[in-house]
Amino acid sequence: MPRAWTLAARPQGMPTPADFAIVDLPAAPLADGEVRVANRWLSVDPYMRGRMNDVKSYVPPFVLGEPMTGGAVGEVVESRDGALVVGDMVQHMLGWRDEATGPAAAFTKLPALDVPPQSFLGQLGMPGMTGYFGLLEVAQAKAGDTVFVSAAAGAVGSTVVQVAKAKGMTVIGSAGGAEKAAWVRSLGADAVIDYKAGPVVKALAAAAPKGIDVYFDNVGGDHLDAALASARPNARFAICGMIDVYNDAKPTELKYLARLIGNRVRMQGFIVSDYMDRAAEFYRDMGALLAAGKLRAEETIHDGLDATPDAFMGLFSGGNTGKMLVRL
Amino acid sequence: MPRAWTLAARPQGMPTPADFAIVDLPAAPLADGEVRVANRWLSVDPYMRGRMNDVKSYVPPFVLGEPMTGGAVGEVVESRDGALVVGDMVQHMLGWRDEATGPAAAFTKLPALDVPPQSFLGQLGMPGMTGYFGLLEVAQAKAGDTVFVSAAAGAVGSTVVQVAKAKGMTVIGSAGGAEKAAWVRSLGADAVIDYKAGPVVKALAAAAPKGIDVYFDNVGGDHLDAALASARPNARFAICGMIDVYNDAKPTELKYLARLIGNRVRMQGFIVSDYMDRAAEFYRDMGALLAAGKLRAEETIHDGLDATPDAFMGLFSGGNTGKMLVRL
Repeated sequence: MPRAWTLAARPQGMPTPADFAIVDLPAAPLADGEVRVANRWLSVDPYMRGRMNDVKSYVPPFVLGEPMTGGAVGEVVESRDGALVVGDMVQHMLGWRDEATGPAAAFTKLPALDVPPQSFLGQLGMPGMTGYFGLLEVAQAKAGDTVFVSAAAGAVGSTVVQVAKAKGMTVIGSAGGAEKAAWVRSLGADAVIDYKAGPVVKALAAAAPKGIDVYFDNVGGDHLDAALASARPNARFAICGMIDVYNDAKPTELKYLARLIGNRVRMQGFIVSDYMDRAAEFYRDMGALLAAGKLRAEETIHDGLDATPDAFMGLFSGGNTGKMLVRL
Repeated sequence: MPRAWTLAARPQGMPTPADFAIVDLPAAPLADGEVRVANRWLSVDPYMRGRMNDVKSYVPPFVLGEPMTGGAVGEVVESRDGALVVGDMVQHMLGWRDEATGPAAAFTKLPALDVPPQSFLGQLGMPGMTGYFGLLEVAQAKAGDTVFVSAAAGAVGSTVVQVAKAKGMTVIGSAGGAEKAAWVRSLGADAVIDYKAGPVVKALAAAAPKGIDVYFDNVGGDHLDAALASARPNARFAICGMIDVYNDAKPTELKYLARLIGNRVRMQGFIVSDYMDRAAEFYRDMGALLAAGKLRAEETIHDGLDATPDAFMGLFSGGNTGKMLVRL
């Protein structure tokens, strides 16, 4: 019988196992136009934390007691629609479950690129598009710029590091702990800050003595403040995430915010879904980088549907290098 | 004998009278190409507080013990240059003193507009240009937008209120106290928040139930946080000043900063001097508004050079409605 994870309670601060409950899904026959997909890979992403709160946002909150949703890749095992046949690999948003059923239009056949299917949840999926368009469009980063990216060992950040290097930029990444820092450096970063080793503001000033032109923010808090302190004139900040505050109601404290003014800094929040109509361009450019051997991906894999909450919670305790995935 | 104010000590937090000292200036004959100007009006502006700290910024710090500088309007009383003749009214940056001497190129003859000369330190000067270009260029405000402006009773804010109304926008201003609030409303603001009467975040949510498209920030802190809480999708914030932190080393606390992301908010710091090459356009458009009776100016005037530090310190204690000036 198919099973799915539901949100049992809205987390107070950091999520705990008691906030999640697994339920059986009714096994129903397909209607005309529907397909059944056996999920092979589930994505867990930091933005999901926001959906666990009962507040209006750009994605609606999860409903208590109902199956949660999220990115997934699976294989069509039954089809009553001409657009998809058994054996097709598809990506879709009915994650947090082992089997997904719905209208064929809710499932997108994977592009024909010679990469593992789970890439479409990472570097070639939402996290990759986030890094790509955030860096190149939102922050208007260009060759010669000095780019600072936080959570550089994560799915989004590691894409930013590699795209920036491929496009001729100088890159400073931050990551937590020596092992992750070493991995970020192996991706080509010119300097890496281990944020667990000391204040980010000092480390960034040392790593970028002439300042930064671009900041790609996945973290907020002390990283954002350090970026403000090191911002060069006309610096552009792409504000992608603030993992620092997702689990924490305390305000962000910024000592260097007023530097926005004198340095004409631009901070721009963005959502990757605004760029979905440019997916073809993304696949073309990232595909070329992949083919040229300029992109490496790392995955942190949890096995089995039962491990999904652990994988999710690991996002907030530094548990992943690269993309965090659940393999079914 | 001419006199000038010097910075005697770098203020710790809020400036005090002991931070200033008045000195006699040597009376020297003019060299070829120089003019002597009797100052009639001196400007005091919040940005000057930044120059009193010994930190690198977009304007260099004041040097301890040397005459301070700032906007001024005066009359040429002696000239050894063909470009200016005795009786010409000029604007220049040798303020904080009663007499200014220097090369003629350092003094600009006032444009021929039928307004009082001190207007060129206010609505037709740096504060007016700041409001005008900050609203229309930096924030890209347009007819139909809902605009929130802090310090709306100040020299910059009162310009923003009136230009926004003249261009067909809905305007919410904030000011401290019932009297200033009433004045801002008399300028045409659709709603006014008295920030001394309660939390700004609640008052703004009530005044703009559908949210704001533009925020013109003169204050930072709780006003900026309220604007973040009320930001509509694709809102633009022009970050002009943060008077909240000029005298205070404590960090800015923002509870709603992460709303930048979901609402794709753009925060853009700016400096009015970047728009100096568009002064002609500014005079033309503002001149037309003035002629149409769509702009009102208020002034808070202190008399005599000795009162200059008091006028300056008053900027930080809510001492001014409209432009703060010293009349000599």
